[in-house]
Parts: sequence; structure tokens; C-alpha cells
Amino acid sequence: MDTPSSLQELVESLRCLPGVGPKSAQRMAFHLLQRDHPGATRLARALSQALAVVRHCEKCNTLTEEQVCELCRSPRRDSALLCVVETPADLLMMEQAHCYRGQYFVLMGRLSPLDGIGPREIHLDRLIRRVGDGLVREVILATNFTVEGEATAHYIADLVRSKGIKVSRIARGLPVGGELEHVDSGTLAQAVVERREL
Amino acid sequence: MDTPSSLQELVESLRCLPGVGPKSAQRMAFHLLQRDHPGATRLARALSQALAVVRHCEKCNTLTEEQVCELCRSPRRDSALLCVVETPADLLMMEQAHCYRGQYFVLMGRLSPLDGIGPREIHLDRLIRRVGDGLVREVILATNFTVEGEATAHYIADLVRSKGIKVSRIARGLPVGGELEHVDSGTLAQAVVERREL
Repeated sequence: MDTPSSLQELVESLRCLPGVGPKSAQRMAFHLLQRDHPGATRLARALSQALAVVRHCEKCNTLTEEQVCELCRSPRRDSALLCVVETPADLLMMEQAHCYRGQYFVLMGRLSPLDGIGPREIHLDRLIRRVGDGLVREVILATNFTVEGEATAHYIADLVRSKGIKVSRIARGLPVGGELEHVDSGTLAQAVVERREL
Repeated sequence: MDTPSSLQELVESLRCLPGVGPKSAQRMAFHLLQRDHPGATRLARALSQALAVVRHCEKCNTLTEEQVCELCRSPRRDSALLCVVETPADLLMMEQAHCYRGQYFVLMGRLSPLDGIGPREIHLDRLIRRVGDGLVREVILATNFTVEGEATAHYIADLVRSKGIKVSRIARGLPVGGELEHVDSGTLAQAVVERREL
């Protein structure tokens, strides 16, 4: 039997979601059409709406509905501190940790020459202009501790240091509550190398 | 920082997809808005389109764009055989196995009294009318081998047998290529009980 073409198209469209393969796309499509018409309607509307209104903040580059996002406009955020993260999701994680009161710059990616992602694609020109605004006194690099995240951090650190601005990197080590027995040896080795004096 | 409301709404809408929790919904929303606008547009359109045109086949109850689905209209399918499955996904699995040339009836669920799903909700009245059409000579029950699928199979078997029509159940046992060492003991026990003479 051929699947109805609009169902087939829905299954294929769902494949654009990260982590969704052919099997789960099919399960999702059947679920929506069999059991959750209201949910499907709401999702279609939310997609169109978000596509229409969500854009990048002119200052920090995160996703927002305004020209400059709420966080960048907030007078309570310290404009002397600028935290560089890879994605808006990373920014949210930082905010949820309630550990930081400065501002952000969202790269929307990381350096990855093999994928054609260079300094231009992650908006480093804008970052450098931002760093030179006379207010920023420290740039905190919070890119991921992956090979690409680390390379990105080092590249940005060189650029920022050449402007005479202080640069730091968030710490690497065992997670809070982490046990030596269960941590990978790479992390443990780094935790020893980067040990702090008490 | 507050997430833009349209982004928040998109994240919540994505939660209606089966197996999608808050974390993956957020990841999906960011992915769509950061990296895949064409995919998101296509998905929104496919959802609206499918919601508008997909409905239930009047004969077998599966999802289709027509009054009677292609499979039910096909002259090459044996109308003496009627296979009962729980969902359109199960029907597709049967078709992909290329093992069956009869017709289908899709329950769109299974008996589950605790969830308020009784004989009426799985359209057993329509199934029984269908079985009494004078063409069907054997009903093959292919509901799942879960507690609810088994209960549904037994309930339907009683109904169909009372109409004087032959009923069968697909076999239970080890999977093809299955090894005794890796199969659960319940399946192995059933495979012994339901052993076939050679």
C-alpha cells in the first residue's frame, strides 16, 4: 500500500527535527493524525508564528522578537562582563545556573573549518566591535569543551587579548557531586592539571 | 532572561510529539530557528496540509486521503482474509513484511478499560458489520502481544467466533535470527508451549 502523499510529506518534514529518524518521524506523524489534532494545529501555528517574528538580537546575537533583546536592554546586567557562548541554548543554561550577571555574545556556532564555518560565520567581527565598545572589561569564554569549542575559545582569546582586554575561560573539572570512580579519565587528568590552591 | 514568547510557545507545542521532553523540545526549537528555516516552513505546511486532508478509510479505518483507501479498493487483495491491527503503523509493518495479501481493519487503539477505551472506541461495531459482509472467511488477529493487545484479541475472537467465522492469531515465539541466550524467558516459555510439530 502507498502511504497517502500528505502523510508521507509530513513524515519527511518531521525528519528535519534533530534526532528524529524515519521510524520516529512515522510514529510522530501517526500520533498527531490519530490522537492529537489540537496539538498538531498548535504546532503548525507556533512554527509559522516563530518563523515570522523570531530574529537575532542586534547586540548579543541571540534569538529574540525585538531589535535588542530583553537581557541586553536590562540595566541590571553588568556591561563590563561579556560571556561568549555557542548557542542560545547555552545562554539559557548559564541563566538557569544563576551564576552570572553580565552580558552575552552568542556565536550561533563554533569554528569548524571542515564544515566551512570560519570566523565570519560565527560573527567574530561583530564580537570584536562589541568588545571594543569601551565598557567591556572582561570576556568570559563559555564555549563547549569539545575540540571545536576549545579551538574557538583559543582563537577568540588571541583576538581579545590583542585588544588589551582581559579574557578568561570557564573552569573544567569534575561535576558537582561527581565521583572519581565515575568520571572519564580525560576529565580527571584535566582536573588534576588545573587544580586550585586552597 | 525571559525566552521570547513565540519561542516558548514553539517549545511547548513540540512537546505534543511522542517521546519529546522539555530538553529535546528546546533543542528542536533552537535548531529550527537557528539552522533550518526551510525545514520549519515545510513542517508547518505539511502539518496544516495533513490535518486538512487526512481522514479515516470508511472500510478499514486506516488513515487515508480518500473515502476508501487504495488498499481496500485494490482488486488484487483477497477479501476473504481480514487482518485486524491496532494502528496504521502496524498495518505498514505488515505490508513491509510482504507476507499478507488480504485486507485489513485498523482498530485505532486497543481495549483499555482503565483509560476509558472500550469496544465502542475501537470501532468493534464496524468491525463486526465488516466481518458479516459475506466475503470474509477468516479474521487474523495481529494486535500486539501486550496485556492490552492480548485482551483485545481474545475479546474480538469471541465476537467473531459467535458469527461462525474462523479466527486466528499471529504466532508468538523467538524472532527470526533470535538466540535463546538473548531472548527473555517469557518469550522462550511461550515458544515452548506453542511449539509446532515438524
